Amino acid sequence: MEVRSSVALDSAAELSLAYTPGVARVCSAIAEDPTLTRSYTWVPNTVAVVTDGTAVLGLGDIGPAAAMPVMEGKAVLFKQFGGVDGIPVCLDTTDTEEIIETVVRMAPSFGGINLEDISAPRCFEIEDRLKERLDIPVFHDDQHGTAVVTLAALVNALRLTGREPGETRIVISGAGAAGVAIAKILLNAGMHDIVVTDRKGVVSSDRSDLTPVKKELAALTADPNGRSGTLADAFDGADVYIGVSGGTVPEDVVATMAEDAIIFAMANPDPEVHPEVAHRYAAVVATGRSDFPNQINNVLAFPGIFRGAFDAQATAITEGMKVAAATALADLVGDELRPDLVIPSPFDARVGPAVAQAVSGAAHADGVARAPR
Amino acid sequence: MEVRSSVALDSAAELSLAYTPGVARVCSAIAEDPTLTRSYTWVPNTVAVVTDGTAVLGLGDIGPAAAMPVMEGKAVLFKQFGGVDGIPVCLDTTDTEEIIETVVRMAPSFGGINLEDISAPRCFEIEDRLKERLDIPVFHDDQHGTAVVTLAALVNALRLTGREPGETRIVISGAGAAGVAIAKILLNAGMHDIVVTDRKGVVSSDRSDLTPVKKELAALTADPNGRSGTLADAFDGADVYIGVSGGTVPEDVVATMAEDAIIFAMANPDPEVHPEVAHRYAAVVATGRSDFPNQINNVLAFPGIFRGAFDAQATAITEGMKVAAATALADLVGDELRPDLVIPSPFDARVGPAVAQAVSGAAHADGVARAPR
Repeated sequence: MEVRSSVALDSAAELSLAYTPGVARVCSAIAEDPTLTRSYTWVPNTVAVVTDGTAVLGLGDIGPAAAMPVMEGKAVLFKQFGGVDGIPVCLDTTDTEEIIETVVRMAPSFGGINLEDISAPRCFEIEDRLKERLDIPVFHDDQHGTAVVTLAALVNALRLTGREPGETRIVISGAGAAGVAIAKILLNAGMHDIVVTDRKGVVSSDRSDLTPVKKELAALTADPNGRSGTLADAFDGADVYIGVSGGTVPEDVVATMAEDAIIFAMANPDPEVHPEVAHRYAAVVATGRSDFPNQINNVLAFPGIFRGAFDAQATAITEGMKVAAATALADLVGDELRPDLVIPSPFDARVGPAVAQAVSGAAHADGVARAPR
Repeated sequence: MEVRSSVALDSAAELSLAYTPGVARVCSAIAEDPTLTRSYTWVPNTVAVVTDGTAVLGLGDIGPAAAMPVMEGKAVLFKQFGGVDGIPVCLDTTDTEEIIETVVRMAPSFGGINLEDISAPRCFEIEDRLKERLDIPVFHDDQHGTAVVTLAALVNALRLTGREPGETRIVISGAGAAGVAIAKILLNAGMHDIVVTDRKGVVSSDRSDLTPVKKELAALTADPNGRSGTLADAFDGADVYIGVSGGTVPEDVVATMAEDAIIFAMANPDPEVHPEVAHRYAAVVATGRSDFPNQINNVLAFPGIFRGAFDAQATAITEGMKVAAATALADLVGDELRPDLVIPSPFDARVGPAVAQAVSGAAHADGVARAPR
């Protein structure tokens, strides 16, 4: 990756415009009217891709230096699919307060903050507190990017199998960043019957070992089912399984799902239910892998979401903007909808612009846009 | 300015190499051997251009947002003249400890740190402490970039006027970042007879109002002259005047300098001595402006210095590397040396490579290079 000037600088005259003394006039103008930052600098089109290297892909806590290739890859995707300039920032601290302070101090340099591969539960507090303190979009992609694409694929899978969102029984395994965010976006989208499981079984209010985030999750998913027990208990008769946990679900447990089930086994590189097994019981199967159909890939969401937020000069990314992104993604499949095509390909050139337009519109509708409509 | 990928990403296969799952192999390799960061990421070619916006050009403390155009311009110059990827980082804090901590935490993201437009005396402590804590080059350009180019121009001006460095009487007005660094590099280069002045006159040990940095400066410049008094006292009989203070030196004071004097009036946009006035008394005149001959412009130094440091994989930028950069710059003028050409033009294509080669060589000589010679 490289940084490039978008203007040529070939003479002393151009040099004295781009740098001293000409640049002083630009600085003075911004000092008088800070909104001119948006016209005169690259800031409004940049997103810091921030990590502490504690939850990198399936590799876990490998530290900031080893996390850089993921952040750099992410920045490349931001540019290619959203025209957004991503700057990798790998932090040499895992302390929640230090991460928050560091990002707040760097914030004047960027138009948005994309948090990446920061382990739960710190990721929740870091995102919430940064949102409170900054007036630029803050987005934890492992939560919301995954949630948006999952919702899009699920909406289409429900359509295909003739299910009503409000009457669908959903099991999510994994109560980390992705699991929590998926549960919340599905609830926002009108799906009520959700259970989330962690390593000890269903995250339910009768358990005494829950973190604050899991307690909230237990409360949010208590109605209407009030279920508790093991992962196997949760599977019995479920319509939808969404795996963001890793590990393997035994085939005899998968076999207890409802007819024409929907299985999104998204762990990478080894899905919780291998697609071959899943197809024996499910009408729609999706994974996180590029070598099977229906890849639930965050790249479908984050470039367009930031493009749309930046186009609207949004001060935040709202729940409405996320649901709008998911709806736009689901709608793109249109008449081509079939069991092995519930979500578009990342190389469908319509994806980025469609997501951006929907997100920008939702930013205006939600009152967080600063740009004229 | 923009961030660009240096590889194309046009298929699912390329996507799964550049991002998940392929990128995991790169991360794992770096986790095992951190030196692979240098081969597998953009880090070793990036420099953070860090400011707190407190001393921006002649504008002073205009804050981080309004400082961005200078940092962005700097990044463009880093790329154009050194092939270095500069990342502007404008910090929303002016607290010394907070700036140090923030930069240390971000450091795994960058191959070097260029401090910029941070006001004195905090800039001295910030640079010193960051050098202690980091094993990558840390360079305060307002100090050392200016000092390197000044030394180069002065070496040639002394040659042209037939002066011996050790026997030349030098007055520097301005005891901020640039003045302190210029005094130190001239001392390192064998010039002994130096007085530095601030608003109250000569920075001398008999004064009771000196900051720790100025006390050190007074001690360094005490021999052999032991001068004190006013700026006018200092000018009387001086061979060289170097202005990095702003303000105006009255013509009757300039008139007291030695015959064939050398005047570098570097304040921007208004030189301390207007070139027209200076030419009445001086054999060689230089300014900081691009519209007069002999522009003392940092862009002659910083891109090549970082290029050379990065080529050598240097852990620091030593005094030897700075003097080597100045010598290379001075030597480039060669046989063309004349009163209106004591320093090359920024658009002389030889400048960046010549400085880089000299700096890389000095890094090896000083034992701070990690690359094979």
